[in-house]
Amino acid sequence: PGKPTIAVIGGDGIGPEVVTEALKVLDAAWGADAYERVDYDLGAERWQRTGEVLPDSVMAELDTADAILFGAIGAAPGATDIPSGLLERGLLLKLRFAFDHYVNLRPSILYPGVPTPLSEAVVGGREIDFVVVREGTEGLYCGNGGVVRAGTPQEIATEVSVNTAFGVERVIRDAFERATQRRNKLTLVHKHNVLVNAGGLWRNRFEAVAAEYPQVTTDYLHVDAATIFMATDPARFDVIVTDNLFGDIITDLAAAVTGGIGLAASGNINPDRTHPSMFEPVHGSAPDIAGQQLADPTAAILSASLLLQHLGEDARAARISEAVAADIAGRGHTKRSTAQVGDALAAAVS
Amino acid sequence: PGKPTIAVIGGDGIGPEVVTEALKVLDAAWGADAYERVDYDLGAERWQRTGEVLPDSVMAELDTADAILFGAIGAAPGATDIPSGLLERGLLLKLRFAFDHYVNLRPSILYPGVPTPLSEAVVGGREIDFVVVREGTEGLYCGNGGVVRAGTPQEIATEVSVNTAFGVERVIRDAFERATQRRNKLTLVHKHNVLVNAGGLWRNRFEAVAAEYPQVTTDYLHVDAATIFMATDPARFDVIVTDNLFGDIITDLAAAVTGGIGLAASGNINPDRTHPSMFEPVHGSAPDIAGQQLADPTAAILSASLLLQHLGEDARAARISEAVAADIAGRGHTKRSTAQVGDALAAAVS
Ligand SMILES: CC(C)[C@H](C(=O)O)[C@@H](O)C(=O)O
Ligand SMILES: CC(C)[C@H](C(=O)O)[C@@H](O)C(=O)O
Repeated sequence: PGKPTIAVIGGDGIGPEVVTEALKVLDAAWGADAYERVDYDLGAERWQRTGEVLPDSVMAELDTADAILFGAIGAAPGATDIPSGLLERGLLLKLRFAFDHYVNLRPSILYPGVPTPLSEAVVGGREIDFVVVREGTEGLYCGNGGVVRAGTPQEIATEVSVNTAFGVERVIRDAFERATQRRNKLTLVHKHNVLVNAGGLWRNRFEAVAAEYPQVTTDYLHVDAATIFMATDPARFDVIVTDNLFGDIITDLAAAVTGGIGLAASGNINPDRTHPSMFEPVHGSAPDIAGQQLADPTAAILSASLLLQHLGEDARAARISEAVAADIAGRGHTKRSTAQVGDALAAAVS
Repeated sequence: PGKPTIAVIGGDGIGPEVVTEALKVLDAAWGADAYERVDYDLGAERWQRTGEVLPDSVMAELDTADAILFGAIGAAPGATDIPSGLLERGLLLKLRFAFDHYVNLRPSILYPGVPTPLSEAVVGGREIDFVVVREGTEGLYCGNGGVVRAGTPQEIATEVSVNTAFGVERVIRDAFERATQRRNKLTLVHKHNVLVNAGGLWRNRFEAVAAEYPQVTTDYLHVDAATIFMATDPARFDVIVTDNLFGDIITDLAAAVTGGIGLAASGNINPDRTHPSMFEPVHGSAPDIAGQQLADPTAAILSASLLLQHLGEDARAARISEAVAADIAGRGHTKRSTAQVGDALAAAVS
């Protein structure tokens, strides 16, 4: 078989900057000639220039890649010509849905030496290392719903959360599997006391799969309570499984308590490998600091590590994540540029 | 006019215990003969005994009260005979919806001396005092949705978020009014880049009302970003307005960062006074610690203060909240019983 193909979508704002550093480190750990790289020009700027968000022909090409490295999308705040959600729904979520990224994997590790907003009483001496398995293809993200009498005092807007036994069970199963490879603890997060339909389905699929994994200790938290524990006792978590929207919310919080979204990597994973998986930092395009070499590329670099792991390059993936951990531990108060962080990590892994 | 009537629903678990203390303090600040008190026996235990959740006749009676003081509902974890959501939807949410509690008001204050999970770097020297105006009668809480092919591998469960211009505009207007009485800053929290229908409605109503309040500085945060700021810079907030579910989530987090849900009070307010408003601690029934005098009644006591304020008894309301602030500042590490906290505060306000 030929070399694997990595599709690269830098996107907008700080996206291209952090992806540049991720590729630098990828090349150092893996070799620039170990893979075929194809760059895609997508995002706000392309839309403004051409009116295109994600042409079908580009979708078809991306679908032939072995994995996708994604930066961030989202226009500058001034760009009011871009309808809200156009790029999110038309590009990022379109890829997640079309490529069946039903496992949105978001690890959270509090590396030694990393500043956290939590007090020493909460984090001191504890190991904080958990992973959120966020469902990626259903729920409120499916884009169902609509507006009637738009712009009138009688406007009604709806959003429909769609949850299927098929979709819920497969992601729960994936989470149980991951738990067995970690500390055998799995927490379901939902809000079944209010969202009784979806909550009932999540609970009954969770219980059904749990019966197959007697070695895994399970518990349940309402999403509101989960945010409390995230702030007061994040060390309690090992693996969390939750729906698309709750996962979106608690992973940003998880990133905040483990050192900020500058460090939070994610994988949009298709475990069945029927389409390419996609790896991206949890952070957004941060247009306010774009182009100034101020962004921390660590999240993008860790996303490249997840990508390597997905391609079976476990040793190289580990080399990157270990280099990151060491680098973070040594970070003082001197601010480095985006490229300086990338250079240091590239040097460390080569 | 006769004395105002206060309906009291202690509920389950620690609910009755904390409400007992709230009434003790209310009586001390206001006088036991200043109001007519009517107790209602509702919650898990009544349902188990009688099969009734909230009979129509009780609803009609409650509707004649001037205000309601509510403890908490929710059965012990062992009580698997109670269907999920039965009490929440059938009692608490039924009251919020039927009595048109469209402003779910949740103040968050970090009192001096209160332990917070946040580091000194985040909270040190800053005043953290904000209020969340959570919409209370719409969104995903309205109970629309359903299940098809329940219990089969083809099960589909839906939840529908319903948002009306009427409902969204009135709560936004209330939030702007509150901002003018505080520090003139209002943050809208939503997720309009994904929930484009509901998000569009919230944004356009927000912008329309903002035009009438030029003195109020506004900003917008996606709900995921809002959780980050809650953990890293809660002092940035003054008034937040958001929908029912996002409000549920961020107010638990807000409570956690400002000292825990043992201190978080709330008002389910009908600003038009077409039905009684209802005041309750944000915490739940905590069945694991019920009946042991372990619960902190402060949240219930502060809820009684909000109740007094709603009835126009501002001076007495302030006496309670000031006594609470003083008590909290003096709290050492000695653990007091539920009744001891109530006794101390009753003594302080009488
Ligand atoms: C940009 C946005 C659509 C996205 C999401 O909501 O999933 C982001 O917040 C994320 O978490 O990846
Ligand atoms: C008990 C539950 C229905 C309720 C809610 O979700 O509103 C609670 O969490 C709250 O915040 O008051």
